[in-house]
Amino acid sequence: MRRSITKFLFVVLALTGVAYAVDPLPSWNDTASKKAIVAFVEKVTTEGSPDFVPVPERIATFDNDGTLWCEQPLPVQLYFVLDRVKALAPQHSEWKTQEPFASLLRGDLKTALAGGERAALELVMATHTGMTTVEFEQIVKDWIATARHPKTSKLFTDMTYEPMLELLAYLRANGFKTYIVSGGGIEFMRPWAERVYGVPPEQVVGSSVKTKFEMRDGKPVLVRLPEVNFVDDNDGKPVGINQHIGRRPIMAFGNSTGDLPMLQYTQGGSGARLRFWCCTMMQLANTPMALPRDCQASNLVLSRRRFTTRRSRMAGPWSA
Amino acid sequence: MRRSITKFLFVVLALTGVAYAVDPLPSWNDTASKKAIVAFVEKVTTEGSPDFVPVPERIATFDNDGTLWCEQPLPVQLYFVLDRVKALAPQHSEWKTQEPFASLLRGDLKTALAGGERAALELVMATHTGMTTVEFEQIVKDWIATARHPKTSKLFTDMTYEPMLELLAYLRANGFKTYIVSGGGIEFMRPWAERVYGVPPEQVVGSSVKTKFEMRDGKPVLVRLPEVNFVDDNDGKPVGINQHIGRRPIMAFGNSTGDLPMLQYTQGGSGARLRFWCCTMMQLANTPMALPRDCQASNLVLSRRRFTTRRSRMAGPWSA
Repeated sequence: MRRSITKFLFVVLALTGVAYAVDPLPSWNDTASKKAIVAFVEKVTTEGSPDFVPVPERIATFDNDGTLWCEQPLPVQLYFVLDRVKALAPQHSEWKTQEPFASLLRGDLKTALAGGERAALELVMATHTGMTTVEFEQIVKDWIATARHPKTSKLFTDMTYEPMLELLAYLRANGFKTYIVSGGGIEFMRPWAERVYGVPPEQVVGSSVKTKFEMRDGKPVLVRLPEVNFVDDNDGKPVGINQHIGRRPIMAFGNSTGDLPMLQYTQGGSGARLRFWCCTMMQLANTPMALPRDCQASNLVLSRRRFTTRRSRMAGPWSA
Repeated sequence: MRRSITKFLFVVLALTGVAYAVDPLPSWNDTASKKAIVAFVEKVTTEGSPDFVPVPERIATFDNDGTLWCEQPLPVQLYFVLDRVKALAPQHSEWKTQEPFASLLRGDLKTALAGGERAALELVMATHTGMTTVEFEQIVKDWIATARHPKTSKLFTDMTYEPMLELLAYLRANGFKTYIVSGGGIEFMRPWAERVYGVPPEQVVGSSVKTKFEMRDGKPVLVRLPEVNFVDDNDGKPVGINQHIGRRPIMAFGNSTGDLPMLQYTQGGSGARLRFWCCTMMQLANTPMALPRDCQASNLVLSRRRFTTRRSRMAGPWSA
C-alpha cells in the first residue's frame, strides 16, 4: 500500500514537473568541489539573487580529451589516425618507406612521432583530408561504432567520465548551454558528441582544416583541404569561443595547461564565474597521469572519477 | 455580453496554449511565395509526415543585407566605416592626404572606393581593429543606438523588413533555429542581432578579422588584429555554415548572387528543402534595386516588402 502511494506520488511529480530533492551528481564524492558547483548553479539560477544570470548567458565550456573522456595512454583521435593509415596503406605503396608512415605501419609509434608537430600534421592531413565533409563524417561514424580502447577493450564512447556526464546533464537541466571546446578535430567530434554527451554539432568547437565549396557531379559539396584552418588549443581556445559563441562562458572545465587560457578568459568576465580544473586522479586504472604543473593553483579538484557505467543517465533533452 | 465571452475564450486559449488559426505572416501578400513557406513548414513539422524533420535539424539561414534589412543606397556597415573614419580622423592627421581616407573625409566616397577591394580593406582595418573585442562591441552598440538612414532618417535597426521579422518569429515558433549568414562582420552584427532579429550571438555567422588572446593590465582580452580571418560571402557561406553549425540548413534565404552557394548547398541535402530568393521590389521608396541576374531561375519571389512598423511582433522567445 505504502509502496503504491509512493509510486503514485512519483508519477504525479514527474507529470507535473515539480522539482524534488534528488542528488543531481550522484557519482561525485561529497567534497568541496561538488558543493562549489551546486552552490554556483543555485546562485546563478535564483531569480532575485545578486548573482542571477539570465538563461541565454548561461554558457559552460568543456575541454574533451582528459576532461570528458580518457586521453591515456594516447588521445583517442590518434588511434583514429593509426587505423586510417592502416586502412589507406594499400593505396599508398610509397608509405612502406616514407616516414612517418613507415614506422607507424611497423607499429613503431615512437619513431613515427619523433618528427614532432610536422610528422603529426603529415599524418593528420593524409588521413583527414581529400574527401568531402559528408564522406569524412561517415568515416568517423563507422570507426567510432567499433573502435575500442587498447587497455580496457571498451568502446571509446564508453570511456567517458560518468561524473562529467552527470554534470553536463545537471547544467542543461538548469538552463545552461553546454559547449565542447577541444584541441581535437571539430569534425571528428561532431558525428558522435550529440549521442554521447548530448552536445549538438553547433555546440562543438574544435580544430579544423580548411574546406572548399564546389559542385561535384552536379552536387554541392565541401571538400576537406590539406591545410590547417584553426588550432583550438591554448590561446586558440578563447579565440574559438569568441568566434563560435560570441559570449564569454560563466563556467569552464579543463584538465591541462592547454585549457589555461580558456579558464583565464572565463574568469575575466564580470559577474559570477566558476572555472574548474578536473584533475584526474585515476585516469586509467594502470596509468596514473601526472598532475598539471599548476594544478594546486587552481581552485578545485575532482576527488574521484569513474567511467560510464549507467548510460541511461544521459537520457533527456539533448540540447539546451 | 458577447464581447466579454469572446475575451474570456481568448484568455483561456492563450493560457492553455491551444493553437488557433491566426495568420503568422500578416504583412505578406497572399501569393505562391507565402503558400510555399507555410506548406513547407507544415509538412516538416507534422509528425508522421514523410517529410517530417526533427527539431534539432530545423535549421534556417538568412542573409542579412538586403534580406533582413536594407542595403541601399549603401550597405549599413559602410556608414559605420564612414562615421568611424570621421571620429578617428583627429588622431590621424596623415589621413588628410592619404587615400582612401582623404577622399572619404572630403565626402567623396566614389573616389575613396575607386581603389576597389584594397581600399575597402584598408578602411575596414583602420576602423575595425586594434581594440579588444569588448571595446569594439561597445563602439558598435553606441553607433547603432543613434545612426540613421540617410534617406528615411529612421534608425538603421528600424530599416528591417517586417515580413522577414514575421518569418523569423514564425519559424522559431515552429522549432526552427534561425541563423544569420552574412558577408557583413560577425562582430558588427552580434551586438544588436538578438534585440532586433531575436538571433543570439552564437547564431550569427559572418566575416571576421583574426583575434589574439593576451593579458592586458592583468585582464584576459581578445585583441582584434588587422588581418582577415574569414570572408563569409559567396563560396564562403557554405564553409561558414559548416564551420559554425555543422548541419546543412533545410531553409535558406538570400537576395543576391553572393547567396547562391548557400542556396545551392541547402538544396543539396537529402529530405525536404526550401531555398528562397527574396527579391526586393521596393528596396527603398526611391531606390529600386536591379533584380539579381538569375532571379527568374529561383523559385519564389516576395511580392511586397515594407519596413518595420510594429516592433511588438518580435516579442516572444528570442532563441529557439
